[in-house]
Amino acid sequence: MEGADGTPTTSIDKVAEDVIVSYVEEKDLPFNILSEEIGYVDRGAEETLVVDPIDGTNNAVMGLPFFSVSLAIGTQSLMDVRMGLVRNLVTGTSYYSEKGKGAFKDGLLIHSRDFRPDSSLFLIYMGKYASYETMRVVKSFERGRSIGCASLEMCMVAEGMVDGYYMNCEKHDKSIRVVDIAASALILREAGGELLDLSGRPLDMPFNLEVRSNFAAIGDLKAAEVIISE
Amino acid sequence: MEGADGTPTTSIDKVAEDVIVSYVEEKDLPFNILSEEIGYVDRGAEETLVVDPIDGTNNAVMGLPFFSVSLAIGTQSLMDVRMGLVRNLVTGTSYYSEKGKGAFKDGLLIHSRDFRPDSSLFLIYMGKYASYETMRVVKSFERGRSIGCASLEMCMVAEGMVDGYYMNCEKHDKSIRVVDIAASALILREAGGELLDLSGRPLDMPFNLEVRSNFAAIGDLKAAEVIISE
Repeated sequence: MEGADGTPTTSIDKVAEDVIVSYVEEKDLPFNILSEEIGYVDRGAEETLVVDPIDGTNNAVMGLPFFSVSLAIGTQSLMDVRMGLVRNLVTGTSYYSEKGKGAFKDGLLIHSRDFRPDSSLFLIYMGKYASYETMRVVKSFERGRSIGCASLEMCMVAEGMVDGYYMNCEKHDKSIRVVDIAASALILREAGGELLDLSGRPLDMPFNLEVRSNFAAIGDLKAAEVIISE
Repeated sequence: MEGADGTPTTSIDKVAEDVIVSYVEEKDLPFNILSEEIGYVDRGAEETLVVDPIDGTNNAVMGLPFFSVSLAIGTQSLMDVRMGLVRNLVTGTSYYSEKGKGAFKDGLLIHSRDFRPDSSLFLIYMGKYASYETMRVVKSFERGRSIGCASLEMCMVAEGMVDGYYMNCEKHDKSIRVVDIAASALILREAGGELLDLSGRPLDMPFNLEVRSNFAAIGDLKAAEVIISE
């Protein structure tokens, strides 16, 4: 099975997406839809519901309790997203934000943490396509973890559990798409953190599945100095 | 606070250890004790209880639900351990083995999985002291995760959730001690896996906190060909 952008997908992603798309259609919610498998569905609305039905499919399959659904509402790109929700599908924990109103975890206000180099902890994208530059970044922090669910890992940055999340794929079609991070980017920024491309500029991405990007999600701009090498 | 081997420790490790040591003393169990903080306690017994009161202390502190207690019984080294128990302190899941009798997860027999390169998944030790060789290994598998709790990560290899766990520290005093893996090594081997040093030989370690080693825990010897470069 292939997704709208040509990447292989699994049936649980498709089932989860069908549920969400059907709900929008049945309730006739005033949104277009952009989702991982189905692509862009123009329903003649001003706003678009940006959906990642399941982030961390491989974790779900292997039994690692980190996978999530992400929903965001905006018009054209990351920067105009006005609402974002990321729910951990194992624990039921929800991260939520409305633009300008802060970020919340199960109803409690969250904030990213100040960067302290001597107890720094980063989440890192790992695997076959991780660039060698990744290792320089890993070695610049005290501790590293790799969970395999970017949206939840960005929420962990937002709530101040860790200092950042770093993805640097050398293979372009393995790096992130807007559907993966539309909700978590708003949550992170509303929690006091920032989302940067790897040259250190705030990352924006259009609502388009063909666009991919590497990135760093950080809780404190001081952490950027260590990560950004260009 | 400093452990018996000079590494910094945290108070929760010490509290957990005190509980275990007090229990052995009160019940006058027929064991010497080797533990992370207290070191070796000679109680005139033939066998030694090898204790890691908390593996994954940093996970516990940050709120990542992976930390465990490990208990093993043997006489002199990893190879003569006859019983091993690793308990996930968040979920309560227990991994258990008696030598020659197989390995169990909550009472059910577990077995490591066959290695298939096209869907390979490794757990990797990450952080400041991870060697650059680590990145070569990460890139030789499809997917990587890093959980930060070696004993539980080895049990995940034992139960066939992943293909292996790899630790390659360039700083010797950050690599593994016998207390960390005495229980999980037996569980892994009884589940059909193997524990190797990084030259590819089965790893043995004496009951001695001063000895450290890098290692690879694998579910299938076929995975060793990819990891071992020497």
